[in-house]
Amino acid sequence: MVEYPGFNFDIVKKDSQTNARLGYLTTPHGSFETPNFIFCATRAAIKCGGPEDLKAVQTDIILSNTYHLLLRPGPDLVEKMGGLHKFMNWDGPMLTDSGGFQIFSLGHGSVAEEIKGKNKTNTVKTLRKITEKGATFKSYIDGRMHTLTPESSIDVQRKLGADIILVLDECTPFHVDKRYTERSMELSHRWADRSLEEFKRGHNGKQSLYGIVQGGVYEDLRLRASEFISSRPFFGHAIGGSLGADKQQMYEVVDFAMAGLSKDRPIHLLGIGGIDDIWENVAKGIDTFDCVSPTRLARHGWALHRTGKKFKLNIHNASNREDERPLEEECDCSTCQNYTRAYIHYLIKAKEIQGMRLIVIHNMRFMMRLLSTIRTAIKEDRFLETKKAWLQE
Amino acid sequence: MVEYPGFNFDIVKKDSQTNARLGYLTTPHGSFETPNFIFCATRAAIKCGGPEDLKAVQTDIILSNTYHLLLRPGPDLVEKMGGLHKFMNWDGPMLTDSGGFQIFSLGHGSVAEEIKGKNKTNTVKTLRKITEKGATFKSYIDGRMHTLTPESSIDVQRKLGADIILVLDECTPFHVDKRYTERSMELSHRWADRSLEEFKRGHNGKQSLYGIVQGGVYEDLRLRASEFISSRPFFGHAIGGSLGADKQQMYEVVDFAMAGLSKDRPIHLLGIGGIDDIWENVAKGIDTFDCVSPTRLARHGWALHRTGKKFKLNIHNASNREDERPLEEECDCSTCQNYTRAYIHYLIKAKEIQGMRLIVIHNMRFMMRLLSTIRTAIKEDRFLETKKAWLQE
Repeated sequence: MVEYPGFNFDIVKKDSQTNARLGYLTTPHGSFETPNFIFCATRAAIKCGGPEDLKAVQTDIILSNTYHLLLRPGPDLVEKMGGLHKFMNWDGPMLTDSGGFQIFSLGHGSVAEEIKGKNKTNTVKTLRKITEKGATFKSYIDGRMHTLTPESSIDVQRKLGADIILVLDECTPFHVDKRYTERSMELSHRWADRSLEEFKRGHNGKQSLYGIVQGGVYEDLRLRASEFISSRPFFGHAIGGSLGADKQQMYEVVDFAMAGLSKDRPIHLLGIGGIDDIWENVAKGIDTFDCVSPTRLARHGWALHRTGKKFKLNIHNASNREDERPLEEECDCSTCQNYTRAYIHYLIKAKEIQGMRLIVIHNMRFMMRLLSTIRTAIKEDRFLETKKAWLQE
Repeated sequence: MVEYPGFNFDIVKKDSQTNARLGYLTTPHGSFETPNFIFCATRAAIKCGGPEDLKAVQTDIILSNTYHLLLRPGPDLVEKMGGLHKFMNWDGPMLTDSGGFQIFSLGHGSVAEEIKGKNKTNTVKTLRKITEKGATFKSYIDGRMHTLTPESSIDVQRKLGADIILVLDECTPFHVDKRYTERSMELSHRWADRSLEEFKRGHNGKQSLYGIVQGGVYEDLRLRASEFISSRPFFGHAIGGSLGADKQQMYEVVDFAMAGLSKDRPIHLLGIGGIDDIWENVAKGIDTFDCVSPTRLARHGWALHRTGKKFKLNIHNASNREDERPLEEECDCSTCQNYTRAYIHYLIKAKEIQGMRLIVIHNMRFMMRLLSTIRTAIKEDRFLETKKAWLQE
């Protein structure tokens, strides 16, 4: 057993028609309702904004990436500065990942696309070796070699000090066969146990550990993985690894993984943030999501929009040139309260950073409003009906 | 005569030992004390921030550049969107320049450096022709030819709708001889009269016009120019053109220009924002300044600092790596209240936009605190003593 004294997860209400549920997650840095979306302050900062912007859009929880922070500024410095919360001035709940996803995704030469099933190979491969012990990779900053083990990942995450931390797992690319996926999953399970051991050794009650379900796109492997992870005293679960080549396969894979997971713990779906994907996966019982897409889209001039094509609006389009409407008429964010599409269109065309900033703020608030809508729908027993209206089903 | 009904400039107090003065300038969008510093929202936006940031650092007045806005998004669009104040969501006092400085500085192939006496010629020359009528130049955006005349500059600035607008003048480079400078000054005077005529024709009481003193580095020409400008019914004066090759010569040239200016009107010094330059020129009677340097320095990792080398601190320096102090200990800005040098050093190293944003906010607040210090010193009869302490004289 592992005690998580500062943590709690209550399921407040279950939807009658789907597996959607309303939860309440407590951490030492505060509590929040689920389903929820975790914003990516990838390198201990969100793009073009700070914690005051996160608070203005009513964000509950953020994450930072261990991989990036390990390389720069390094966990020892962050610890010396009082931990990540203090370093970046965020006093709310926070999650860090194990570093695994980036090691393997960058390592296979293609960031997330490879693991997500796309076949891009335009980046330099930095992964050098995967052994029983851990993974050896080259820093993209200074070329120095690093080895991350299950133990060192926990150690790094302890120094960073996030509330929720993750076990190191091997993230297999989409294209590998079932045999490789199975052996990789088994390695991840041994790593999960070693992560737990290391977590218990240094446990101070201020952090909680999530186990990760691997198993690729294979139903039997996902079931084995989820049953294994459920059998260990993790505070929560995360579904990771390859979720398939398209949305349909992703929904299937999540079903496979959910089958074996114990439902009394919070369940996080790693790296998914599409609007339709959030609705579909909340319906399957997912409690939290994270994805860089809301802020990344913003930086490329895409504003999230309920009735836009694929829920987004390209502010580059000439049709915005004289458009005096806000990005979204029903939005209460500071961007939509104060600026027209015409102004933001102009700023993005002129490559003014403030243009990105204004869309980042809107997109973050859009996500928070979406998750709030979902929670209210569950509370008021009209989740499925609201989902259908949003997805125009 | 020209009436400026929504405007007023009162000299509230004169320093007994220097020509420094405390003023109170009223515009239709609000009043502010002088000496003051005008922030550059060059292309209708400040870098990495918005009006809420300008208000947080207690900015009184901002400027935008007619040259950039003329090319994109164009004065007609801005007018259609309700004017620049509404377009960019700034409800305080605002100034626009005539477009002349950028036409000539970019036109001579070297942005501001050439006019300021430095000899860089690494950019493409875009100025095509200067005639009695006006200046013809090529757009840096789409290569189209534009002609700006004294009349069209006023027309554009009327559409933009800033409170304070400027006459079109020819900005001569530093290296031209006295004969050229004299003929250019005479052209600028004819243009100043045409600007006034056009201003009067469309005057709606909501804008005020400043005349610009040219004359290069020559004492007799500056005297003629300042006497000419003072003889016309401008609401205020600006000192422009080449101010010499170094600070010493700049101080001399400002003295030449001040000699002939009528002192009951507000006097702006164009494009100067060095900390020592502000002290020296306030002592000569300058009321307002503008310069891109506080925000530009920030974007390059320089924080303004009272006791730093040349009043700045290079956050790139490794000495900041573990420095838990704020950028400036006595600063009350949100950056200094919430972040360490270590964090900002890390962000700038990692090229995170938020690093620039945090320094931009500090540098803007630094300037506002500096100008407030200057005003208080004049009020309390200790301007010279405070200046000496700041400049370590």
